[in-house]
Amino acid sequence: MRGLITGALGMALLSTGQVFADSMHHGVAAAPNGIEFPEGYTDWRVISASHRTDNHSMRVILGNDIAIEAARSGQTNPWPDGAILGKVVWKETAEEHWPTAIAPDKFVHAEFMFRDSRKYADGTGWGWARWVGLEQVPYGKDANFDQECISCHMPVKSRDYVFTTPAQFP
Amino acid sequence: MRGLITGALGMALLSTGQVFADSMHHGVAAAPNGIEFPEGYTDWRVISASHRTDNHSMRVILGNDIAIEAARSGQTNPWPDGAILGKVVWKETAEEHWPTAIAPDKFVHAEFMFRDSRKYADGTGWGWARWVGLEQVPYGKDANFDQECISCHMPVKSRDYVFTTPAQFP
Repeated sequence: MRGLITGALGMALLSTGQVFADSMHHGVAAAPNGIEFPEGYTDWRVISASHRTDNHSMRVILGNDIAIEAARSGQTNPWPDGAILGKVVWKETAEEHWPTAIAPDKFVHAEFMFRDSRKYADGTGWGWARWVGLEQVPYGKDANFDQECISCHMPVKSRDYVFTTPAQFP
Repeated sequence: MRGLITGALGMALLSTGQVFADSMHHGVAAAPNGIEFPEGYTDWRVISASHRTDNHSMRVILGNDIAIEAARSGQTNPWPDGAILGKVVWKETAEEHWPTAIAPDKFVHAEFMFRDSRKYADGTGWGWARWVGLEQVPYGKDANFDQECISCHMPVKSRDYVFTTPAQFP
């Protein structure tokens, strides 16, 4: 998923010595670790949802086709290569006409785990990325930003680093 | 969406005098008002989500293609004919490894609003149906069960009877 290097696009020398392209994919820049924006994720199907009462946010957890097939057949430890999990996050609000129902307010960000057990064999088996706001700005100052993702997900290492349990469907 | 009447399937004479078929669609019986089960709804895209703190349930709100196009272009008052909104409901639970995150537990039911401004011109412009549990048993004793749906949705008559505000997406 390393960004394509073209003359028209900027390049940066990271502190790790890696060269990556500040590439654009349909107008959305790649993450600092080179992971490309997963175009079309808003059309992915549902794995689950959550309400973070600690930071007052609502989330839906989506998956690409490989992830959905895995989620709905219980093949999630490990998740299969090619699976992408997407968490879409909004600030919470009370529904105007049903105030005990908490629902999404402003969009915050969308964050993703990209399964590739060979490419990420030295780490968690996942690539990590987040795009912030309606402008979809890549999160992180350099390629090591994902250490923040990983440290937060360490408590669920035994669940293949995934907090989400796929919701039950008929 | 009236059920097909075939010799192999049961029929019932409703109190309203209407004849409807106790038809099956891929094994799921039609609702008592004749509305057919919306096969494949678990593959629909996301409109929003909610956490009902009053009855401790989690929901995702899905839409068929017509509903998604309307939701994402702001054409929701009225919603267009052919739109189907689906609300998938689970009991709530705390995520095991992040207990302040509330997430789906057991599946409860899926309930739907079917937009047809001509067919339902005498009512709300919507047909209503719900299928309960993993067995997807039609809700309601007779064709008038939808009065219960409508009375609950009356406070949002000015919102075309829809509580849900489509979540913001980039």
